[in-house]
Amino acid sequence: MHKGGCTVTETKKRIVVVGAGYWGPNLARNFRASADWELAAICDLDETRAQLLADSLGGVPVRTSLADVLADETVDAIAVATPARTHHPIVTAALEAGKHVMVEKPLADDRMRGEDMVALAAERGLVLMADHTYCYTPAVLKIREIIAEGMLGDILFVDSVRINLGLIQPDVDVFWDLAPHDLSILDFVLPGGLDTTSVSAHGSDPLRTGKACVGYLAMPLAGGAMAHVNVNWLSPTKIRQMVIGGTQRTLVWDDLNPQQRISVYDRGVDIDTVSKETTLDRRSANISYRLGDTWSPALPEREALGGVVAEFAAAIREGRPARTSGDAGLRVLAVLDAAQRSLAAGGAPAPMTLDIQPHRTTRGAAA
Amino acid sequence: MHKGGCTVTETKKRIVVVGAGYWGPNLARNFRASADWELAAICDLDETRAQLLADSLGGVPVRTSLADVLADETVDAIAVATPARTHHPIVTAALEAGKHVMVEKPLADDRMRGEDMVALAAERGLVLMADHTYCYTPAVLKIREIIAEGMLGDILFVDSVRINLGLIQPDVDVFWDLAPHDLSILDFVLPGGLDTTSVSAHGSDPLRTGKACVGYLAMPLAGGAMAHVNVNWLSPTKIRQMVIGGTQRTLVWDDLNPQQRISVYDRGVDIDTVSKETTLDRRSANISYRLGDTWSPALPEREALGGVVAEFAAAIREGRPARTSGDAGLRVLAVLDAAQRSLAAGGAPAPMTLDIQPHRTTRGAAA
Amino acid sequence: MHKGGCTVTETKKRIVVVGAGYWGPNLARNFRASADWELAAICDLDETRAQLLADSLGGVPVRTSLADVLADETVDAIAVATPARTHHPIVTAALEAGKHVMVEKPLADDRMRGEDMVALAAERGLVLMADHTYCYTPAVLKIREIIAEGMLGDILFVDSVRINLGLIQPDVDVFWDLAPHDLSILDFVLPGGLDTTSVSAHGSDPLRTGKACVGYLAMPLAGGAMAHVNVNWLSPTKIRQMVIGGTQRTLVWDDLNPQQRISVYDRGVDIDTVSKETTLDRRSANISYRLGDTWSPALPEREALGGVVAEFAAAIREGRPARTSGDAGLRVLAVLDAAQRSLAAGGAPAPMTLDIQPHRTTRGAAA
Amino acid sequence: MHKGGCTVTETKKRIVVVGAGYWGPNLARNFRASADWELAAICDLDETRAQLLADSLGGVPVRTSLADVLADETVDAIAVATPARTHHPIVTAALEAGKHVMVEKPLADDRMRGEDMVALAAERGLVLMADHTYCYTPAVLKIREIIAEGMLGDILFVDSVRINLGLIQPDVDVFWDLAPHDLSILDFVLPGGLDTTSVSAHGSDPLRTGKACVGYLAMPLAGGAMAHVNVNWLSPTKIRQMVIGGTQRTLVWDDLNPQQRISVYDRGVDIDTVSKETTLDRRSANISYRLGDTWSPALPEREALGGVVAEFAAAIREGRPARTSGDAGLRVLAVLDAAQRSLAAGGAPAPMTLDIQPHRTTRGAAA
Repeated sequence: MHKGGCTVTETKKRIVVVGAGYWGPNLARNFRASADWELAAICDLDETRAQLLADSLGGVPVRTSLADVLADETVDAIAVATPARTHHPIVTAALEAGKHVMVEKPLADDRMRGEDMVALAAERGLVLMADHTYCYTPAVLKIREIIAEGMLGDILFVDSVRINLGLIQPDVDVFWDLAPHDLSILDFVLPGGLDTTSVSAHGSDPLRTGKACVGYLAMPLAGGAMAHVNVNWLSPTKIRQMVIGGTQRTLVWDDLNPQQRISVYDRGVDIDTVSKETTLDRRSANISYRLGDTWSPALPEREALGGVVAEFAAAIREGRPARTSGDAGLRVLAVLDAAQRSLAAGGAPAPMTLDIQPHRTTRGAAA
Repeated sequence: MHKGGCTVTETKKRIVVVGAGYWGPNLARNFRASADWELAAICDLDETRAQLLADSLGGVPVRTSLADVLADETVDAIAVATPARTHHPIVTAALEAGKHVMVEKPLADDRMRGEDMVALAAERGLVLMADHTYCYTPAVLKIREIIAEGMLGDILFVDSVRINLGLIQPDVDVFWDLAPHDLSILDFVLPGGLDTTSVSAHGSDPLRTGKACVGYLAMPLAGGAMAHVNVNWLSPTKIRQMVIGGTQRTLVWDDLNPQQRISVYDRGVDIDTVSKETTLDRRSANISYRLGDTWSPALPEREALGGVVAEFAAAIREGRPARTSGDAGLRVLAVLDAAQRSLAAGGAPAPMTLDIQPHRTTRGAAA
Repeated sequence: MHKGGCTVTETKKRIVVVGAGYWGPNLARNFRASADWELAAICDLDETRAQLLADSLGGVPVRTSLADVLADETVDAIAVATPARTHHPIVTAALEAGKHVMVEKPLADDRMRGEDMVALAAERGLVLMADHTYCYTPAVLKIREIIAEGMLGDILFVDSVRINLGLIQPDVDVFWDLAPHDLSILDFVLPGGLDTTSVSAHGSDPLRTGKACVGYLAMPLAGGAMAHVNVNWLSPTKIRQMVIGGTQRTLVWDDLNPQQRISVYDRGVDIDTVSKETTLDRRSANISYRLGDTWSPALPEREALGGVVAEFAAAIREGRPARTSGDAGLRVLAVLDAAQRSLAAGGAPAPMTLDIQPHRTTRGAAA
Repeated sequence: MHKGGCTVTETKKRIVVVGAGYWGPNLARNFRASADWELAAICDLDETRAQLLADSLGGVPVRTSLADVLADETVDAIAVATPARTHHPIVTAALEAGKHVMVEKPLADDRMRGEDMVALAAERGLVLMADHTYCYTPAVLKIREIIAEGMLGDILFVDSVRINLGLIQPDVDVFWDLAPHDLSILDFVLPGGLDTTSVSAHGSDPLRTGKACVGYLAMPLAGGAMAHVNVNWLSPTKIRQMVIGGTQRTLVWDDLNPQQRISVYDRGVDIDTVSKETTLDRRSANISYRLGDTWSPALPEREALGGVVAEFAAAIREGRPARTSGDAGLRVLAVLDAAQRSLAAGGAPAPMTLDIQPHRTTRGAAA
């Protein structure tokens, strides 16, 4: 790029969206609308489905052969929106073919395969980006900023609830379906990322479907804090809420309240030293409560996927890992992997042994 | 009683409220207003506090010596509202003295002491009642009725959240402070009571107070279902919500929404047989969704403690265990005990070994 | 048209959407997706805007001359989504040309012009339909059904609130912009339609824009009931709520609560005969309160405009007025007209003198 | 009184609460608890009721003769909590007897009688205070402060809703029962007080009780702004909400949301000069929207009546009108009086002719 080209059009990267099912259309629409990208084709084994999507975008080429796509030297990158179990073969083939790759969450259907993909991308100096879409919403970007600025103080606890009447799926349980959202957000907003030493998972399968449809994850964080995630496919009411408690303030994100998605409460407990002395009256003395104001920041209305495709382009252009890199996707997989082990052990905590290397720079490798 | 007495007044039982701190005044006021009881005295080591309470009730005798109260043969029963660690000595002394006893939750500060109290009451043929106040609220009584009538079908999951900016206490953690509410309610409304084989507890103490102030309990129920409780002293917002999912309907109890405390959703997932066959499209086929009506029953406005004191009188009169018996209190203690063991084991599930005997009848013993 | 055709495809009516601004794209998309219609063209003076819309629909012809559209004999009908002040010339030209017409609300920018349009359509035996979109939402259809079944009893009051931070517009005030929604819904759901004898309007223009941006309408209904509408462009919070109180039950429609849009409360006041006798205690005696259950019907998720375009086709096919006929549009205009007179008179009630004739049948005329 | 006294106790004023019905007990409890007051007696024609109240307060003298109370020279003041139609005779008798008087809202059941009371108090140099309790809540005090500091800018509109399933009363309509709350609050928080030139009232009596049970008040304010009040006894849901829109910010007070009673939105419309030029596209150009942050101030938990009784004492002590003076009560009556005239005229605006004099100082007169 910048090879003497003089029009903006020439600097556009060419992308192919692979998978025209549930999520692919959203990706395709955003790549189509982006100034950074030229949507080169829609690729799906089901040609009718691909054609329908291509038509709705005003006429985009259709491909049914991934091999042909990967063999096309004018294609710079692919965006993968196929079932999780197909991520590894598709992504590795694409990386082998020298394409940058963005993958719908979860990165892979298995941690080892995820590690393999990350290692391969690093080896080839290509960008492997996890499409952790939530991380590009105005709300999550603002939460990250609020925490980074120290407004919450030290993090004491994180409690995330994501429940709804959901689609019971044939090949994944509720953890693999929903928890990647919560985990990728935690990884994105917490100062140290999603850094837990163990995962305890409790799931139940009361409908006898063969996989959990109600699930809980408890993850100790550094400094005595804890992150907890509750996912549920059987709830008649829909809740998407995350509470992040800090020593200074506590943030509540209610994603289903468009009028006040984020509230920051200057409310909390101040402890000098908790009295060990007990009295007949059970109320203690050396504690004080802050009942301060609440503040709710204005958030722009902006589609998150626009930010995703822009970041993918920027990471390629600047030869750096994406903000939601393959490593971030791998950290999510590592928690899911530990959760599976904990479930298998009846809920006993499973250690996290992940030591994910910083992403090697891809500078100089692209193009 | 029934000794040929002909006035209503003569059949009133005489009660002494022990403890004039936080909860005692509520008990005293309700015993005072009850047609079943004569409030014989307020007893507290702190005479000023006792006198203040007695005055506000229009002049009730005050006692500072528990021994004197127990020695008074005209006293039929005592209601104990003192710190949990004093329950065992006070209750055993009262039972030894032949008094019926009602105890604020938790029954005791330790499971063994609770078992001792229950055994002693049974041996003496006296009523030992747990003051599980929530079980006498119109909402919980209605939930119990709804479940008993089979309106929810088989229970699939229970999720209870009780969070608030709470008082950090010198001698109990958040589990012992708040979870008895949730556990006693579960024991009261579930068809088989609180019948779990193990308890996994995850707590965190990020403020270094020496005890957990954020806590989670996961309890497998019979048939693959799960009960989960979330208690938190650090939340800036207050939530008291319980979701009880069933095969037929799902009930949501939002105790802080006086205009619609209970909602019963005829909404859920119907599964014939989940397809094991997987397709490229990840959405499955043999599942159907019910999106039926919502129903919210009218609830009377009634103070729960009025029901508590009436039930205490009725249990004594009829020589039967109270609806929230000592055994119910003991089942709560058994979960808290297992939770403590799980916490000590880093969150590994702790087995529940409780085999609580049915309460022996007290008939014939009360007079 | 195309006589002798035997396939379903040939029975499709051909429609042109006039106006590609704010609302036109929604109409065009729904006509395009309908089995009843063939979207023959998009017509707008601004060719670029029209072309953009046409492209997004996969290639629909574009016209910039309304005269050409009306001269095209293969066109059966037009849908008008242009500013209100242009409705009269466009619609009369279309009716003169023998086209059926659907018009975005309000029907016209003036009552006399609306009457003229309605009279012309009747004279020509053509369908003139008001696009009162809300009347085709699942919620409003259900409300109409609930009232028709007598579940609410006699209507006692209707209170409608529609407030939001809104676009202050150059040519209409808040009454003309927002109240047509409320008025068309009232006309649709009330057993006798929007049948008021007078309108009192109170508006304020505190920003000195030359037109009201906060407004209230009070309209006495038959039997002592009252309808009231509150519209506001300056509210930072968004409320869309209608309360319909009846002698038997009261319905609350909260359009911004997707989890419970409609609630029917079996709650109210029962009066035998109100005591005229007064006592020192100001509380009265012969009144009782019903505090019954609440019921919330399930509603399908369905786009209202799909129902609008289907109804337009059905009305033409069956030679009958549309459910939201030109007359319905005219009743809305009559209230707005009275409201203007009341505003001009400083809020004094303005009489409603409308005597709208039943729509003459269009049967036999449409083909 | 009791000159020469040197202890704080001796400076306490002696008050008699007249009326032991609905509101009297609240007043009595607060006078009893106040350091400024000695509750000298409870006075009610119904001795049993008075005695019950007196007992519950730990033994306060009971009187059944108002004349005796007024003849008692040790009594400094009386607080009147009797039906509105008795206010005038009781208050005038008390003022004649030299007592300071506090009166439950509304000040009187008629404007003329209210004026008479205010004039008499001024003449005698006595404090006549309206018990506008809401004005002493932390929320209303904060709203007054926010407006006074200019945070909202110029007031554009006020919209107050107070609806509930209410007691239909034998002698007052919904305006006289509920609107005094809204009107007294408006008078308290608006920079110029409740200063309207006319009142339009719309009421409906669909249950044929002889008085309105659904009502609306529209009141133009200075500068093109408008205040509107909606009161309703027939609503199955309870709403107590006031929106105060300003040029800078808009405040929403939701009194039934204890977790966020007051929200201040930095959201609104900024207009340079609204374009008169109209285009085919109906959206206008020279308007910009502010979508800023929301702020919710912390509010102390404090019983308003504590502030009421303290202010009554302070006004007497300092020889000045109370913050909610007789004049304030009179301004409320003047609006209710105009509302009655508007109702009688079928909703036509009734002029407000009130010219309430500043309260003459009472300094030096009280002893």
